[in-house]
Amino acid sequence: MRSFTLHIPTRFVFGDDNLDRAGKEIRPLAKKVLVVCSSGSVVRTGILKRLIRSLEVNGIIADVYDQVMPNPRVSMVDKGGKLAADLKVEAVIGFGGGSAMDAAKGVAIVAANGGSIWDYVHTNGMANHSLPVIAIPTLSATGSEGNAFGVVTHDESAQKISFISPAVKPVLSIIDPKLTMSVPEDYFRDGVVDVIAHSIEAYISSKDYAPLNDRFSLALIKTAVEMGEKILLEPENSEYRGVFAWTAMMALNGINDAGREGPYPVHTLEHPLSGKYDLSHGRGLALLLPRYLRYFQEDKAEKIIAFGQAVFDSSIQNAGEALTAFESWLEKFQRRLTFQSLNIPQNDIPALTDMVFEMMANRKGNISGPRQMNRDDVTAIYLKCLT
Amino acid sequence: MRSFTLHIPTRFVFGDDNLDRAGKEIRPLAKKVLVVCSSGSVVRTGILKRLIRSLEVNGIIADVYDQVMPNPRVSMVDKGGKLAADLKVEAVIGFGGGSAMDAAKGVAIVAANGGSIWDYVHTNGMANHSLPVIAIPTLSATGSEGNAFGVVTHDESAQKISFISPAVKPVLSIIDPKLTMSVPEDYFRDGVVDVIAHSIEAYISSKDYAPLNDRFSLALIKTAVEMGEKILLEPENSEYRGVFAWTAMMALNGINDAGREGPYPVHTLEHPLSGKYDLSHGRGLALLLPRYLRYFQEDKAEKIIAFGQAVFDSSIQNAGEALTAFESWLEKFQRRLTFQSLNIPQNDIPALTDMVFEMMANRKGNISGPRQMNRDDVTAIYLKCLT
Repeated sequence: MRSFTLHIPTRFVFGDDNLDRAGKEIRPLAKKVLVVCSSGSVVRTGILKRLIRSLEVNGIIADVYDQVMPNPRVSMVDKGGKLAADLKVEAVIGFGGGSAMDAAKGVAIVAANGGSIWDYVHTNGMANHSLPVIAIPTLSATGSEGNAFGVVTHDESAQKISFISPAVKPVLSIIDPKLTMSVPEDYFRDGVVDVIAHSIEAYISSKDYAPLNDRFSLALIKTAVEMGEKILLEPENSEYRGVFAWTAMMALNGINDAGREGPYPVHTLEHPLSGKYDLSHGRGLALLLPRYLRYFQEDKAEKIIAFGQAVFDSSIQNAGEALTAFESWLEKFQRRLTFQSLNIPQNDIPALTDMVFEMMANRKGNISGPRQMNRDDVTAIYLKCLT
Repeated sequence: MRSFTLHIPTRFVFGDDNLDRAGKEIRPLAKKVLVVCSSGSVVRTGILKRLIRSLEVNGIIADVYDQVMPNPRVSMVDKGGKLAADLKVEAVIGFGGGSAMDAAKGVAIVAANGGSIWDYVHTNGMANHSLPVIAIPTLSATGSEGNAFGVVTHDESAQKISFISPAVKPVLSIIDPKLTMSVPEDYFRDGVVDVIAHSIEAYISSKDYAPLNDRFSLALIKTAVEMGEKILLEPENSEYRGVFAWTAMMALNGINDAGREGPYPVHTLEHPLSGKYDLSHGRGLALLLPRYLRYFQEDKAEKIIAFGQAVFDSSIQNAGEALTAFESWLEKFQRRLTFQSLNIPQNDIPALTDMVFEMMANRKGNISGPRQMNRDDVTAIYLKCLT
């Protein structure tokens, strides 16, 4: 294992119907807040109203910034940041899926520092300060409720890129599994794939000896796959929803990767897709993940076999069988995708490859992966997505 | 899963030779500290001197309270608490195994609140305040470096019991795997069993549906067993030491049991043994754990089989085989113990049972376990330890 510092200051308040405790939990932290959310399912299902009521009953003044869209744009985040600063709120609540929580983090940074969130994406700098962030996820997917990350998309270039700042680790996350019933099934499926991707990235790409982390990763993936199936069969079962909410948070809160460092190349290749075509991130990951694993099938055979055995079938003998099992599962889960099924033109592959290298090239001019990846590698993986 | 609140505010600084960074890490937290430790291996191996040097180089005034003994006594903790208060230190550093870290937590509570640590054991009350605690473990075992617990033993009654206070969750834990090479092999073996016990207690006793937690538990146990064997073969291998240090901390920092609540009956039955006979806690656990599992072999067959398959042999078919495999492993690990091998008189069983019920009876007058346990149950488990 590698040296690391791990610090998860977030207080996680987990349980069904905890949304109605939000005001009581938040009151000691802030008396004036901005709720950052979309104007979609949180409104339609009435849960935004429930949140506001809980805040107001506890004497918290709440404004709502309901401009969040999928793949949050820099301009939207910056506008929210200015609003939060003008309103002099004491905390920002991200209420929704990853987009809302990430936008809230960006808003909290811009409110405290001025400028644009683009100044703080990881190629440009890092914010040392922000307003306190509170997360209330309605989708189990990105794990934003337990980490220091956010992702934003540039309005003009469509570059999608992450910012990271210890300052935006939520001070409080209210995880109410029942809230995830408010979100359409398609997003749920995408969320399951996102959780699998978070659990598998460093498991595959890292060279560090970290057997506990590797076992945790497989436990996370197995549980995500299992809950993915169970929740589709029983969408109103809040036990399953709870297990999956906990799994999603645990997959990207730093524990899974502590001491086992490795790049996230599937995410690196995905961000141009969801940025440029306004895809769901989870769908882009579902497209790329099996092709990426096929591409490194020989280099990473041992890890891939262990993945297949732990998650799909203990009798799996080789990496090819493991990946066939994974692909079959994706098919069954309605997430076996191609460029065509996602309306991505084949001719865009050079432009997508450019986008990858423009934002994510490492000091050697390559993309970090299980090994150094050059343009040919990236192009080859995109090409595998055609069929 | 059950509703829960999880909060791990500790900053974990993990890596070989981090002891020499202690002063730099601690400096922002405190300028005057009390180091709580034994006068044993930390002195003999020179690591206490290294710690003091690192503190002093960084301008931190450090006093040393080196009175910690195995199974820390209340009087020793209270005396340390008074010393810390008199010296007006700003933080207490627990440097050593569980005894030193637990004693430091007790010292930090007594320094802040006055009185005796016995006022704050969990049958008597809870401390809301303490001086900040910093943990530097030299033994991977109790997980005290990542949690709110401490255990103390009453000077007269020999009752050994835990205190719990969010205030003593360490603000900083410096986990330097190489430090664990300073501790005799016997303690290391005991530590491995302690980690297994922490991972397995709620896994067995809980009735909650929590598949991710269950998989985490098995990952922890498998890794503890594996590192237990590897470290005995290569005691100077700091990679293995690191993985085991990380495993020990993760086994009792709240994550393993979050949403999966269950009593720790093996600990409940063990504390009178280590309290009364001044045994190592890990040895008492090694004695009791297989007998406890045998006692509940039928009630908990499914969990025990999964444990056996994950840790020892995937072809295991029933709970009996799983426990035979565990017992064989304990034998090989030199921790297959009996009352006789630990010099515990058979005639003491009624007195031990009294001690258990005196401190740990629940509201129904029973001991909490996989089911309500009465005197006959407890006596029967002790009796199984004779052979």
